[in-house]
Amino acid sequence: MVTTAASVNLLKLLQDKATRLRIDSIRATTAAGSGHPTSCASAADIVSVLFFSVMRFDPKQPHNPANDVFVLSKGHAAPVLYSAWSEAGLFPREHLLTLRQTSSDLEGHPTPKLPYVDVATGSLGQGLPVGLGIALNAKLEKSDQRVYVLMGDGESAEGSVWESAELGGNDALDNLCAIIDVNRLGQSGPTMLQHHMEVYKARWEAFGWHAIVVDGHDISALLKAFDEAEETKGKPTIILARTLKGKGIVGIEDKEGWHGKPLPKEEADRAVAVLEKSLTGEADSWTPKLPDQRATPAVPITGAMPKSPYAIGGKEVATRKAFGDALHELGKVNPRVVALDADVKNSTFTEEFMTTAPQRFFEGYIAEQNMVGMSMGLAARGKIPFCSTFACFFTRAFDFIRMAAISQLNVKFAGTHVGVSIGEDGPSQMGLEDIAMFAAEPNYTVLYPSDATSAWAATMLAAELVGPTYIRLGRPNNPIVYSPDEKFEIGKSKVLRQGNNDRILVVAAGVTLFEALKAYDELKKGGIDIRVVDLFSVQPIDRATLVASARAAGNQVITVEDHYSHGGLGDAVQSVLSSERIPVYKIAVTEIPHSGKPQELVEKFGISSKSIVAKVKELL
Amino acid sequence: MVTTAASVNLLKLLQDKATRLRIDSIRATTAAGSGHPTSCASAADIVSVLFFSVMRFDPKQPHNPANDVFVLSKGHAAPVLYSAWSEAGLFPREHLLTLRQTSSDLEGHPTPKLPYVDVATGSLGQGLPVGLGIALNAKLEKSDQRVYVLMGDGESAEGSVWESAELGGNDALDNLCAIIDVNRLGQSGPTMLQHHMEVYKARWEAFGWHAIVVDGHDISALLKAFDEAEETKGKPTIILARTLKGKGIVGIEDKEGWHGKPLPKEEADRAVAVLEKSLTGEADSWTPKLPDQRATPAVPITGAMPKSPYAIGGKEVATRKAFGDALHELGKVNPRVVALDADVKNSTFTEEFMTTAPQRFFEGYIAEQNMVGMSMGLAARGKIPFCSTFACFFTRAFDFIRMAAISQLNVKFAGTHVGVSIGEDGPSQMGLEDIAMFAAEPNYTVLYPSDATSAWAATMLAAELVGPTYIRLGRPNNPIVYSPDEKFEIGKSKVLRQGNNDRILVVAAGVTLFEALKAYDELKKGGIDIRVVDLFSVQPIDRATLVASARAAGNQVITVEDHYSHGGLGDAVQSVLSSERIPVYKIAVTEIPHSGKPQELVEKFGISSKSIVAKVKELL
Repeated sequence: MVTTAASVNLLKLLQDKATRLRIDSIRATTAAGSGHPTSCASAADIVSVLFFSVMRFDPKQPHNPANDVFVLSKGHAAPVLYSAWSEAGLFPREHLLTLRQTSSDLEGHPTPKLPYVDVATGSLGQGLPVGLGIALNAKLEKSDQRVYVLMGDGESAEGSVWESAELGGNDALDNLCAIIDVNRLGQSGPTMLQHHMEVYKARWEAFGWHAIVVDGHDISALLKAFDEAEETKGKPTIILARTLKGKGIVGIEDKEGWHGKPLPKEEADRAVAVLEKSLTGEADSWTPKLPDQRATPAVPITGAMPKSPYAIGGKEVATRKAFGDALHELGKVNPRVVALDADVKNSTFTEEFMTTAPQRFFEGYIAEQNMVGMSMGLAARGKIPFCSTFACFFTRAFDFIRMAAISQLNVKFAGTHVGVSIGEDGPSQMGLEDIAMFAAEPNYTVLYPSDATSAWAATMLAAELVGPTYIRLGRPNNPIVYSPDEKFEIGKSKVLRQGNNDRILVVAAGVTLFEALKAYDELKKGGIDIRVVDLFSVQPIDRATLVASARAAGNQVITVEDHYSHGGLGDAVQSVLSSERIPVYKIAVTEIPHSGKPQELVEKFGISSKSIVAKVKELL
Repeated sequence: MVTTAASVNLLKLLQDKATRLRIDSIRATTAAGSGHPTSCASAADIVSVLFFSVMRFDPKQPHNPANDVFVLSKGHAAPVLYSAWSEAGLFPREHLLTLRQTSSDLEGHPTPKLPYVDVATGSLGQGLPVGLGIALNAKLEKSDQRVYVLMGDGESAEGSVWESAELGGNDALDNLCAIIDVNRLGQSGPTMLQHHMEVYKARWEAFGWHAIVVDGHDISALLKAFDEAEETKGKPTIILARTLKGKGIVGIEDKEGWHGKPLPKEEADRAVAVLEKSLTGEADSWTPKLPDQRATPAVPITGAMPKSPYAIGGKEVATRKAFGDALHELGKVNPRVVALDADVKNSTFTEEFMTTAPQRFFEGYIAEQNMVGMSMGLAARGKIPFCSTFACFFTRAFDFIRMAAISQLNVKFAGTHVGVSIGEDGPSQMGLEDIAMFAAEPNYTVLYPSDATSAWAATMLAAELVGPTYIRLGRPNNPIVYSPDEKFEIGKSKVLRQGNNDRILVVAAGVTLFEALKAYDELKKGGIDIRVVDLFSVQPIDRATLVASARAAGNQVITVEDHYSHGGLGDAVQSVLSSERIPVYKIAVTEIPHSGKPQELVEKFGISSKSIVAKVKELL
């Protein structure tokens, strides 16, 4: 193949493209005064081969869903990605010089504000889990799209990469090809494995991948490796590319101490001059390989949003069970809905969905980072992924949750088993910081249903909403307090108890709502009226209802929650009532809990009706 | 060895011990009405061999630092651990029946409230990182202590396990032996690899471990494997034990659908009766193998706490640099201090410590979960670990941070590069939810120094304090506002500007403190006096100073922070001022940020002096 005239031209073309990527990366980072030119230079040949020979994509339609997909997991090499799209003709080369400016779309690390980026990268080890999600989506859609994920060698130390390695092998994702740019040098010193390519190979093979070791600066060898990847069936391929950091930059190639440093102007000019000399002029003869242009017919939604089946006063149901029921019904009518779970599907009740729509259920096993990453990939490609596990185990994937916020992805998280009310399993299984975690991200919607009807509603609302959403779900069975006709809205609370003589407002959600209702009954007996609000929507919060309810109820508020005190429901309520000078007294879990019976723990850790009654009496 | 009379007795003894562990696990979980008897049963032979033949430990002194160490990573098998210590004589068998009760120390998953537990487990995939930390500590102390970590097979899907696998191999920790109880069944279905022992073996060998596949119910084979592990030098060993879930429990062995379910009373009695029949009476002849009883001489602290070298008005210094400087000096006088970093030591400035005390510096590479887990292990063994990376990347290890809270461990976290003020690198590198994360844990101390002097002080205070601590550090250089003689305390703030006509209180920390000081100057020119408090200690918070300052400054407060709005500094301040009916107006980052120059971003995202001035004017 390398001996024909046509391929000689292709080699020159790709070599020239790679040289231009290097030149652009040097120029852009020098202009910005920061950035990672040496990390771009090691990857330039790989990116050139991918963009200008291997991948089928329409450079005028970066959003075309049929395009092959490129995920730059080593996000700090952003300039090489930007340069590749500029080379492909999407925007003029001069725009690259706006890199990292406040007003530019070319940020320090890529984000999906750019039409050719699926997810924000820059937190390492996230590209492969996302790539798995995109590859799963292609399989689901029976598309022949291929997915390429470019990683750095340093980042392959992240556990999330190995979670994806085992899942990618297990799921036999042969439409996925990962590449590691093994340039030997991390930020602060050599990587663990440096250039021990045989160790990389043994590891990936052991995880079920077809592994190819290649000189990452040999265009012809790279072309052959990508061909081999495409021909490999039944398993994903990893191309382990031995490279040099700063390759092609005179005086800097393979040198330590050059991570994340732009070249000073003079050195940059010298380096660019050397690179320019090697250009053959072949680069401009590139024409894109377009993808299959047949439009995929949209899969129709086959029914209206299913209605909650629970009757007020009916059999007690856990909110997690209602979520599972709702997801199950939702899956029947909406083919965009997919579900992922981390080996707790019999506790989150997503097994109901699995039974009905097994092809849209993805078992994530006990590997939460990869599960969330796959959800991100699926969301980036138009699916509505519901991703579930115990709330506490989402802390495992906080960095992915954070990056999903930056990416503004349409991922739905359902966290079950929150708070001390899970009981005997003890603190390691109790989600007590999940509101703090999810609500910290300013663009996340956080819903906290209390009964089965509202949990059902929350599930439907999450599916309709476009944007990252968290639903907080409990383990114990609770009474049904809302009728199936009750209308829930994001950003709206429910006033559950009110009268003309309310002397204090109690705001709760989940199990503590029932404690508040118990407190209401008990105080009522003693002639004290309180108003009770079911918060339901923690973020956005129902400022109007809270202010009005507090004003009508003595201008004093108690919040009560099965969550730690900082960053929970109480802080959310305080944030809207503080400026109104309405005091909010938080009742929450304030110490590390213990195993025990659920109701005993609710008492012991001070979030029961007794604590509410005592606080009300203290305040009046 | 298995042919001598003595060893025949040993085999019987260990078989009997294993049988008793099974009986106890069944009885305790049936009494509790919840728990995981089948996960205990698969591990019983392994635990029996470890406790009653392999490990050297003093059963009367579970805290003896010379004991060999056992970490039950599969924490849901807690009853088998409790039973082993009861069998060893630490407490009477009847106590096991208090399992999972509110008043019992025998919780659903082990916690260090028990003298024989180093860290809380129950969130899977954490035992091995902790074990690495303990093994590193033994190497550092030149102790011949051996460390055994028992994992489940389901949990070996966690990326954190593979982070530890690569680091354990890289660090050649031959005093570490991990065991996987490969019982084939997860919670909700079979594991990914089921009984494909050869795949496990290939993976661990590829990660540099000596791997031994063994029948996990063959006592003699287990003894041989542990001998081989002890003899293996230059690499850690993993024993891959093929087991059956529920082994020895009639009717349940190797059956799906029995995860986390106690046996009903009648079935339990029947199972116990069968097991009891197999007892030979050999178990009571056990005598412990005691560890080396020579006391390790305590390493003396060689000097007083070093004093900050920065002068007011001197050269601007970043708080991260001051942290690095302080840690460096601290390391010289306090040999208990160790440092861990995730390939950003040239950004966190922990490379200064590394230079002085290379044997106490552990490069964690880009594998934050394992780094935090190792810190937990080191802390459990008396070290004072300072664990550092960019604040945003600690989100990667939130589940470890959470479990360190449950374990009440003495770990110190230093998170650098917080907020939009990092500038050009963009949102993926900005820590904007780190206060929400760390302060959610009720027993964490959270310090947020603003200048180099206070960052130095925070480092020293963290070292002195016993308990988990987070220090929030910034990227940009800031002026020095405190003299080296200024005394900082945990739980105390500093009033930096005050007068007799203060009309509003502004509370800030980090870069926003300097914005507040600028606002002070500007407002002063216009004849408006404001009071400025440097919060310094976010948790615990200085209620007295905040209330007094707010009262003296118009009963109105503005908080300003380079952090997202929910769960940050503002919420902490609101929580103490709400009940005082003092309104708190939060100025924080309220949207996903962008790349740009630091000061431009501080302006753009509304946390600059301009925003403060505007808010003050609006309120007055």
